[in-house]
Amino acid sequence: MSPAARHSSSRNSQNRSLLDIESLTPDLIQKLLKLARRMESVRRHPSTMLRGKTVALVFYEASTRTRVSFELAAKALGGAITLVTATASSIEKGESLLDTVFTLRAAGADLIVMRHPSSGAPHLAARHLDIPVVNAGDGMHEHPSQALLDALTILRHKKKLSGLKVAIVGDILHSRVARSNVHLLRKFGAQVTLCGPPELAPDVSTTLAPGVHLTRHLDEAIRGADVVMMLRVQKERLAGLQLKVLDYIAHYQLTSERLKPAKRDALVMHPGPIIRGMELSGEVADGPQSVILEQVATGVPVRMAILAHALGAAR
Amino acid sequence: MSPAARHSSSRNSQNRSLLDIESLTPDLIQKLLKLARRMESVRRHPSTMLRGKTVALVFYEASTRTRVSFELAAKALGGAITLVTATASSIEKGESLLDTVFTLRAAGADLIVMRHPSSGAPHLAARHLDIPVVNAGDGMHEHPSQALLDALTILRHKKKLSGLKVAIVGDILHSRVARSNVHLLRKFGAQVTLCGPPELAPDVSTTLAPGVHLTRHLDEAIRGADVVMMLRVQKERLAGLQLKVLDYIAHYQLTSERLKPAKRDALVMHPGPIIRGMELSGEVADGPQSVILEQVATGVPVRMAILAHALGAAR
Amino acid sequence: MSPAARHSSSRNSQNRSLLDIESLTPDLIQKLLKLARRMESVRRHPSTMLRGKTVALVFYEASTRTRVSFELAAKALGGAITLVTATASSIEKGESLLDTVFTLRAAGADLIVMRHPSSGAPHLAARHLDIPVVNAGDGMHEHPSQALLDALTILRHKKKLSGLKVAIVGDILHSRVARSNVHLLRKFGAQVTLCGPPELAPDVSTTLAPGVHLTRHLDEAIRGADVVMMLRVQKERLAGLQLKVLDYIAHYQLTSERLKPAKRDALVMHPGPIIRGMELSGEVADGPQSVILEQVATGVPVRMAILAHALGAAR
Repeated sequence: MSPAARHSSSRNSQNRSLLDIESLTPDLIQKLLKLARRMESVRRHPSTMLRGKTVALVFYEASTRTRVSFELAAKALGGAITLVTATASSIEKGESLLDTVFTLRAAGADLIVMRHPSSGAPHLAARHLDIPVVNAGDGMHEHPSQALLDALTILRHKKKLSGLKVAIVGDILHSRVARSNVHLLRKFGAQVTLCGPPELAPDVSTTLAPGVHLTRHLDEAIRGADVVMMLRVQKERLAGLQLKVLDYIAHYQLTSERLKPAKRDALVMHPGPIIRGMELSGEVADGPQSVILEQVATGVPVRMAILAHALGAAR
Repeated sequence: MSPAARHSSSRNSQNRSLLDIESLTPDLIQKLLKLARRMESVRRHPSTMLRGKTVALVFYEASTRTRVSFELAAKALGGAITLVTATASSIEKGESLLDTVFTLRAAGADLIVMRHPSSGAPHLAARHLDIPVVNAGDGMHEHPSQALLDALTILRHKKKLSGLKVAIVGDILHSRVARSNVHLLRKFGAQVTLCGPPELAPDVSTTLAPGVHLTRHLDEAIRGADVVMMLRVQKERLAGLQLKVLDYIAHYQLTSERLKPAKRDALVMHPGPIIRGMELSGEVADGPQSVILEQVATGVPVRMAILAHALGAAR
Repeated sequence: MSPAARHSSSRNSQNRSLLDIESLTPDLIQKLLKLARRMESVRRHPSTMLRGKTVALVFYEASTRTRVSFELAAKALGGAITLVTATASSIEKGESLLDTVFTLRAAGADLIVMRHPSSGAPHLAARHLDIPVVNAGDGMHEHPSQALLDALTILRHKKKLSGLKVAIVGDILHSRVARSNVHLLRKFGAQVTLCGPPELAPDVSTTLAPGVHLTRHLDEAIRGADVVMMLRVQKERLAGLQLKVLDYIAHYQLTSERLKPAKRDALVMHPGPIIRGMELSGEVADGPQSVILEQVATGVPVRMAILAHALGAAR
């Protein structure tokens, strides 16, 4: 197939791709969340919605929860999956990203779920493919399915996102989860306060979306919050920075004591994997306000909705 | 979910977990073996007994036969599986064992099959989860599904376990297979003789269960035996010991000549993977008394029975 | 099972194995191609032809397209698969190839698809097993399913193979793809010209099959060709040779300019993974004469046919 042919036929599939939250309309977000709610009841009764469809999971980075969640979502809808990881594959032999995805499409993939260390990799793939691409996390850019499942989790406990006070704490700079959540929350009128040391939450972070606040003080971020979203601190990324782990813990680790100034019914969220004693204490992770495992559980119906929507299988 | 909630709801599932042979009643063992015999006929006619159920295979150690056997068992019953290995997963990112299994449960796993290098890891998981856990081998502790398939293999050739003379030869110290088999065989009144050099079969081995004998002489262990169970010698574990490989072979390798003092219809067993020329000769491995491949074949219906029982799917 | 028993029962399954192209009759090749054409229509309507059958994919070497292709072929026919790779398996523990495949058969595999770095490994397995073995690439020997899908791709564009002028360019010496294609093409009367530097296409290459030509000049190979098959240059294999990468590119890289002396409707083929700028230019890879992705697409029905034939499931 010539690149030209690929381009001309790709517009339709791009509309069905899920590449980021930033470019989604609030309408489409609401449609996906509504579909996800319906999928929760489908979950336990194996569906044939994706029967005859093949989902290729292309993971260039390690993942448990996201990969398992998409895998079980596809299987719950009766789809077949094939998993391609960066090791044990042609990727090792020097094949380009585009050639890998063209190959998977040619082999029969109807949709590609991609995690990639480079920001924009799924967009590149979607621009050239005539099948939809779902971004399962690209570099420091976005992780749209995570923001959708976070929104659905919040909405199960709070009436609406509008007006909610949400603190996002930790490594904002490197976090695709933060980026996707900021976009989604601002689209629906939540008040977002970012919090972290300058190395991890630079001043420029407030330009992510209009109306985003930034503070260096955990107490200030948490006071009166409806939702406290903790981010994973990626030790491998601290290596190059001036930041010391113990300093980080001293100022930013979420403990029961530090959670007190938040609203009494504030939710504690974390995209996982959590490291107890690092970004939050075990007491908070297991505490009554933690919805961390509920986030995981919500991930499967959200990904069922994403797959069904992208493949045009949802009525 | 709070740890308290997990604890309170976990009792039921723990009853359904298969964590070791030591704590099983002979009644339950017989029930599982009976169910496994029925599964042999189900094997070739795909069943829907586990339809809509998801089995998470969590392997923190390399495995072919055990992983494949559980995987095919789940699929033969119509269940979905998802495989998590120590590489390419959140385990690399520092997530704790418990957080990994909570995550898998939240993502929809109905049962967790776990292999782990640390003794007791599956017990820890089962104590905190409200879904059953099946131990697929934990450190130097137990490998209960192996003992069940070994028992079923023996019972296909011998009328009963009671009174049978069983020699278990090799690296008793590090062997979870030995430990599980000793417990099962003693519960049913078999005579068990352990055999190996002091480094691999220390005197304390006889305290594993009442009535277990120990000898340093292969000839003594084999004389009159109904069953000779050879264990894998794990070269990586010999490294720290005074023991030399050639000395081991000279004294403990099972050859046709050395097998002669056993009963004429004695069975030769090995949990695999075998290393020909190490713990046994190729001639013995392929000989008429070897049931090594029959053990593998028996593994699938035994694991079907374990899964169906744990999930309450067997009538 | 004794080796003797294995031998006596293995003849039947060997007839059903697909080990190489060299030993196939033209009749059987045509039968497989015809079956593959029928499979193309089955592809999108999940079949139950292999229901209750288990295909073990045993990959001792990295692979994306071949592994994914066999995996999706088995699933499209309703079969179950289990994947065993050289890492994360008993292979690491020193188990022999034969013991690994005996184990998989005992665990319920009905067919083994094997990729192995040693030439002849699948033949060794087939000689000892009573289930069919499909060679998915063995060392520098053969890759029969690739030759079959290449033939089917060519036949979709050209009336017949007889009399076609086919140039095979690049690393002939190390290429199992070249070897399988030479055998198939010569069986059907195509004119085959091999082309490459002495280090990669030694004079002895012409003895592969009767009537094979060899040239050092790309221009000579391509002039008047109906099909130009480019081979992957495996950088890791150049390491030991005198050959320099830049020299190779200067003389043997396929560019639009160099393709001109071929017939106007000549096909450009490559088994993948391609390395753009190495063995061919991106312009040629994406050009109107390229059928590289069509080859991938053809791989799935061809492998469906191979599996169905080997398992006696095709009427």
